[in-house]
This record gives sequence, C-alpha cells and structure tokens, in this order.
Amino acid sequence: MRKKELFDLNTDKPSEDVRMAAKRRFDGIAKPIDGLGTFEDIICRIAAVQGQELPDISKKALIIMCADNGVTAEGVSQTDKNVTASVATLMGKKKSTVGVMSEALGNDPSHGMVDIIPIDIGIDSEEKIEGIADMKVAKGTGNIAKGPAMTDTECLRAIEAGIDTVKKCKDKGIGLIAVGEMGIGNTTTSTALFCALTGTDPKDVTGRGAGLNDEGLERKTDVIERALAVNGYNNNNCYITDTNVYTIDASDALAKLGGLDIAGIVGVYIGAAVCHIPVIIDGAITAVAALTAYHILPDVKEVMIASHTGKEKITGRVLDILGLDPVINADMALGEGTGAVMLIPLLDMVMNLYKNGTRFTDTPIGQYERFDVC
Amino acid sequence: MRKKELFDLNTDKPSEDVRMAAKRRFDGIAKPIDGLGTFEDIICRIAAVQGQELPDISKKALIIMCADNGVTAEGVSQTDKNVTASVATLMGKKKSTVGVMSEALGNDPSHGMVDIIPIDIGIDSEEKIEGIADMKVAKGTGNIAKGPAMTDTECLRAIEAGIDTVKKCKDKGIGLIAVGEMGIGNTTTSTALFCALTGTDPKDVTGRGAGLNDEGLERKTDVIERALAVNGYNNNNCYITDTNVYTIDASDALAKLGGLDIAGIVGVYIGAAVCHIPVIIDGAITAVAALTAYHILPDVKEVMIASHTGKEKITGRVLDILGLDPVINADMALGEGTGAVMLIPLLDMVMNLYKNGTRFTDTPIGQYERFDVC
Repeated sequence: MRKKELFDLNTDKPSEDVRMAAKRRFDGIAKPIDGLGTFEDIICRIAAVQGQELPDISKKALIIMCADNGVTAEGVSQTDKNVTASVATLMGKKKSTVGVMSEALGNDPSHGMVDIIPIDIGIDSEEKIEGIADMKVAKGTGNIAKGPAMTDTECLRAIEAGIDTVKKCKDKGIGLIAVGEMGIGNTTTSTALFCALTGTDPKDVTGRGAGLNDEGLERKTDVIERALAVNGYNNNNCYITDTNVYTIDASDALAKLGGLDIAGIVGVYIGAAVCHIPVIIDGAITAVAALTAYHILPDVKEVMIASHTGKEKITGRVLDILGLDPVINADMALGEGTGAVMLIPLLDMVMNLYKNGTRFTDTPIGQYERFDVC
Repeated sequence: MRKKELFDLNTDKPSEDVRMAAKRRFDGIAKPIDGLGTFEDIICRIAAVQGQELPDISKKALIIMCADNGVTAEGVSQTDKNVTASVATLMGKKKSTVGVMSEALGNDPSHGMVDIIPIDIGIDSEEKIEGIADMKVAKGTGNIAKGPAMTDTECLRAIEAGIDTVKKCKDKGIGLIAVGEMGIGNTTTSTALFCALTGTDPKDVTGRGAGLNDEGLERKTDVIERALAVNGYNNNNCYITDTNVYTIDASDALAKLGGLDIAGIVGVYIGAAVCHIPVIIDGAITAVAALTAYHILPDVKEVMIASHTGKEKITGRVLDILGLDPVINADMALGEGTGAVMLIPLLDMVMNLYKNGTRFTDTPIGQYERFDVC
C-alpha cells in the first residue's frame, strides 16, 4: 500500500437514520427513557455502523498486536523487552491475562465467546510463536530516543496488516472487534506519539506504565522529550483544532515515534471503518492508535467505542478529543485488550434487551415521554 | 424481630489477613502490579468477606424488593403506581428489563447465571403475582408528605424478610448477592431518607427519577421538603461525622420516610453481613438502603460492593460516604438491579484470572516489584 492509497480509502459515515431508528426502538422497550444511559447510545451507534436497526454482534474478535520497541534500551520499563515474546507465547496458548479472563465468557462461538487473534507484527525474535499469526514486519523498531522507529514503508505494511486482519474477520461474520496490544515499552512510544499529535508537554502526561518508580518515571519523561526533539517534533509544529484540521502528518509521526503494534492497531481501526464493523478501544496504546487513525481518516472515529479510562492520563485525553465516553472506570493498567473485552458481556446484556426486551405495546404500561431531543 | 435484636446482630469484620493474602496471590499472577485496578480490590474484599483466599462466587442471586409508596399520590413520578405491579408481573416471567439482560449471562447455574429472586414486600395489590415470592408486609406505605410511611413493626418485619431471604441464599450455596428494587415513587422516598440521614437540603440532590420534567422535579423537591418537615426532620437533628457516630435513629428515619422496598434491602445487607456473603449495590434506592444499614450496624459496610454511579446524585454521595468506588459509569437510571447485575460478568472474568491465571513462577518472566504498600 502506498500512502496515497491509505488516505483515499473509502470510510462512509454510519447511517444517522439507522441510529435514530434504533433510539426510537429503544424508547419502546418497557423501561424509563435513556434508562441504560451510555449503553443505549453505544447500541444505537453499533446499529448505525452496521447500517441495520437490528445489528449482529453475536460473533466477536479481539485482535492483539504484539511488537517490540527499540526504546526499551533506554530503561523505560520495569521488565526486559523479552517479556513481549514470553507473554505472546502465553497468548498463543490462551493462557495470558486476557485469554484466562475471556474463558469466563464461555466457549459458544455464536454467543459470548471472543475469538482471540494475537498477531506477531514485530516481535524481536527469530522463531515463530505457536498460536500467533505471523505478520511480522520487522524484528522490533528503532530506538525513538535516537531516531525514527521505522521507515514509512514498514509503517504502511503494519497498517495494511491491520486492515487485512479486519477483512478476514468480516469474512468470518464477526460483528464486533476489540483491540489490544503487547509490547514492552509501548506506553513510552504511545505517549511520545500523543505528545507529537497534540502538542502536549511530556511532563504533563507521562505515566508509570506497568509500574515505574519515581526515578523511572523521570527517565521515561526525559526519553520522550529526547524522542520528540530528535525526530523533529516540538510544541509548535502540531496542534488540534475544533475543525479537525491538522498540520501534522499523522502517518509520518506514527512511523517516527510509534511502534509496529500501534501501526497495526491503526490499521484495525481503518479496516473496521472500511468494513462497517464497530471496534472497541482498550487503554492508552490503543487510544493513541485511535487518535492517529482519526488524524489519517477522520471518519474512522465513527466506528470507535470507548471501554475504560485506565491509569495512564493519555487515555482520557484521547477519548475527550474523540468525544467518546468510557463506561468502565477502574484504574486499570494492563493492556492485551483486557478493558476492551470487559465491555463485551455488558454489550451482550444490553443488546439482548434491545432486541428481545418486552415492549410497552406488550404491557398495560404507558410509554414514558421524552422531554429532551435525542 | 424487636429493635434491640436488630442492633445486637453479629456482623464480624471480614478477615484482613485473608484480604492481604489475596492481594499477594494477585501480585503473583503474570501481569503488572494492580493491573486490574479496582477489580483486584473487589476480589480481595470478596475473599475477606467469605473468609477464604479462594472465594466461591460461582452461584449468585439478584434479590429484587418490590413495593408501592403512598407518596405517589403527590404526583412525584411520570407513571401511575400500578406500574409497580405490572413490572413485577413481568419479573415473575423473567421478562422485565433485568430478566432479559441476565438471559445473556447464560443458564448454567454453576457459572455466569444469576438466580433472580423478585419479592413482593409491599405491592399495593390483592392478588398473588406468579413467580414472585410473597413476603408482603403491607399493601404499600403511607404518604410520607403527610405522615410516616410505616410503623416500626412493619419496618422491622420488612428488614427481617430481607435477612431471611439471604439466609435461604446461604443455604443454597450462593456466594454473591446483587440487590435491586421496583417501586414507583422510590427515588422520592430514598431521597427523603438520604436527606434525613445526612442533613442534606433536598434542593441539592433531588433528581428526575424515571424521567420528570422541570415542573415535576420542582414538585418532587417540594414533596420531599414537606415529608422531612412533617416527620420531624430538619438539617440540625442529624449529621455525619468522620467517626461514624450518628445522633439520628436510622431505623426510625427508615420507618418514617422510607419504603418497604428500602427496608427489605436494608435487611438483605444486614443478612449478607451475618452470612458472610458480599453484596452488590445497584443505584440510588439500593445505595440509600446501604447507607441506612450502615447507620444501623456500621460493620455491614464491609460486605458491600459498589457497581455503578447512576444519574441520581444521591448514589455518588452515598458511595463516597461508604468509601466505595463504582466501576461502571454510564449515566444509568433504571433500577431492578440492572447496574448491579452488570458487574457480575466482570467479576466472573477477574475471578477466573485470580484463580486460574498463569503465575510468574510458571513463566520465565520476573515478577513486577511493588513500590507502594497495599
């Protein structure tokens, strides 16, 4: 894929007519108007993305992009970078955190169960990992504190891998996608990318990732400042506005400061928009990928659903920019798509009500009146 | 039950040793320290309440207290009071909102499934409703804007019904209880009770319930002010302090301003503390019941788990007082235990990780280091 082809992809806006029809349908269910709050909005948006008043989310997938980051050489994390491959190995056996958590959703592929699709998009290892799709673009990225993470070509290949993965999901009839990631050092890359895209000072937003102490946090902030400087970013050459016009080239920033995991997830969002599949954002890394995808193709925002606000500050900042309301607020900092997957049973519950709930017309109860305009 | 017996009930504190052991066990799971945030705290508290490092929440129940409130005569809700009986009739067929939502959790009684136990504790109707346990104390309550809701004896009978219901759950091996309610007019009664217990001005907290317009909200606020005045409450005769000492008699306030649904739920919390079963609070009405139970027997707080902050302001106020963090934040206003039940699949997911997750000792990964003290 060439850059021009990426920017020319066709991502129609979801149907506003379908969204309004879905809201009217929800108002007909025997319960107070807007009784399920944000969850009702999410269901109506899912209907609009799929373009049908009765959307199908029975089959769902979690796409996890795994990659190494050269910036780990700077000591920005509590663990060694080889943890990426170790956790990916567990993922392949469905024994990593998100695999064990998802077990609790059952194993019925037509309901509840999540099809977990871990992808090696850039793990720094020679061997193939069992149970992990091999879409390796490179064995890790360059150290962003010293230069660009990857070439434009590598970045586009990773984005394309994400798009292709979603197309395969579409062929399998998957109606809802969650995203996750695994890559030691990726709160550093995503924070650097966030700062470049928004003109934010790293001191304001850099967090502890998977558990840095004060000294580690200071080092990480310094690394991000150096990464921005060495790659030509400062607080002046980029900004956000209310009209969604950006002077920054987001795909360029992604290649210089991001990671192959982030680029792959950018591709998943774009692919989801092309394929009309709603996609659930997880925590910080996937949120910054969402912001990047939005900069590349603004309409991609319309297929995104927020799940949780985690411990890292940038997550909430991104969701604010995208105008998305996270419904889970539990101070989580895990990754792998754990927060995104936790939204799934909640959506299954609300979707069942939306589709099969008792309607006012089936009861002696009079429908509640709406005083506001939805 | 006499009042003295109620205040003398034995509610031991959960085991702090077990809670700490559970936290250490969680730290040994291959994931960042505190990676699942508040959910880890909840699992550790559940272990402490059950008094075992590996608690059992495979069987769970939702207890829904249904009752009518005489204050509906004042026009405090958008619908007629007969909606209470109509919705209870749907509940008995598992066709009310929470019944249809819970269907999505499956029907395996040893996992996921929630045993829904709706109780008629005070519906204003002659006939028995199929599928609803008959524990009717009275056919609705008196109009709190004109006098007390019920007698002390009725209030104690409703509390006892809640305690007895939990004891039956204990006999069935239920390890986790959620609470819900149905009763037109019960955001009015619970707001009045909240104001009495905390010395809050009704103008600061009265909400729109199931959808009042501005005029309705003004009328409801006035009704609550009158209810407080006619029953002898003002901002001076009650207060909260940091040391949990209250001059107000909470069971007296409950009888005068509450409802049979609220009193029944107070009994569920107290019964849960007696039986060492963790109990999930739902929205506004169940939150005020939690505050009331805490005033009666402070240790009862230890078995409570918050689920969501709803649209009604009093919910968040109560959870702050109780020091509980809700993990779902979706502007919900439905009742029936819908928010409480939504926490259940999330706890099942995290509990599965806690019990069956891969441990650092089973991997080449070194355990993360904890820098704070838990």
